[in-house]
Amino acid sequence: MNEKTSRLTTEVKEQFMLEAIKEAKKAEMLNEVPIGAVVVIDGEIVGRGHNLREESLDATAHAEMFAIKEACKNIQNWRLERAQLFVTLEPCPMCSGAMLLSRVEEVYYGAKDPKGGTAGTLMNLLDDDRFNHVAYVESGILEEECGMLLTNFFRKLREKKKLLKKQKKD
Amino acid sequence: MNEKTSRLTTEVKEQFMLEAIKEAKKAEMLNEVPIGAVVVIDGEIVGRGHNLREESLDATAHAEMFAIKEACKNIQNWRLERAQLFVTLEPCPMCSGAMLLSRVEEVYYGAKDPKGGTAGTLMNLLDDDRFNHVAYVESGILEEECGMLLTNFFRKLREKKKLLKKQKKD
Repeated sequence: MNEKTSRLTTEVKEQFMLEAIKEAKKAEMLNEVPIGAVVVIDGEIVGRGHNLREESLDATAHAEMFAIKEACKNIQNWRLERAQLFVTLEPCPMCSGAMLLSRVEEVYYGAKDPKGGTAGTLMNLLDDDRFNHVAYVESGILEEECGMLLTNFFRKLREKKKLLKKQKKD
Repeated sequence: MNEKTSRLTTEVKEQFMLEAIKEAKKAEMLNEVPIGAVVVIDGEIVGRGHNLREESLDATAHAEMFAIKEACKNIQNWRLERAQLFVTLEPCPMCSGAMLLSRVEEVYYGAKDPKGGTAGTLMNLLDDDRFNHVAYVESGILEEECGMLLTNFFRKLREKKKLLKKQKKD
């Protein structure tokens, strides 16, 4: 059982989630699914990232992976102890695994992912003491804003596809 | 339930696992934990990788991640359909997740990882139909050779540490 607690106030959590949202918007500008993440150590952002799967043609190009890699590079250590990771969408197995490997201490996310989320929804890989690390997890930080980014993106995508189909018919 | 079956003969499986072992030995030469992987499509190796965590100071620098990224780059597609991945050690959650995301069709590994393996040991993330992809998994390919690489590496590491401790005392 995970008995860790957050050391952050709601205000601070929302402040960093807004930074993750900024990253998600960068993805959206590139027509990528808008997901963003930041890694924070001692109140300072040491890693940022946004989803780049389509542009990079790389299945592993998730926001959290870029944020973790940048943080490791910046602190010149693969162990991100004392780190807090903020991400707009609940992490998938790959990103949850990367958080375990890099020993991220606290994970905060916005919207839940009912299809693939492994930080509480389908399972909680971050709170399984068979692995050699357990992280504190908190969901629902600016949940509506984070979720709306995705809802709007997919709505626009559907509308675009519909229009293209109609144009082909005409 | 995963009803997929392997399309490969034992000889072919061992041939590609020997290539993954070659990668593991490259890691060992760099004093990294000897783990190696290759991605194969239509009988051809399209991605190779070995563990580089210490040298790269990056927690995510696992053999499978490099092999998957290289394969995506080579075929210019993030979907590695029809791909077979060979890795000397059972994948961790991050690498299992990366295999799901890249839609690897078949995963073959050598030694089991009792501490963190998520392709059959602690759980099987590759055969969970709640995710949007399921892969065929087969373990035990050149298991002894793959396991011995790790056993020998950690034995030498312990001996080195013992020697250093003794030298400090003397």
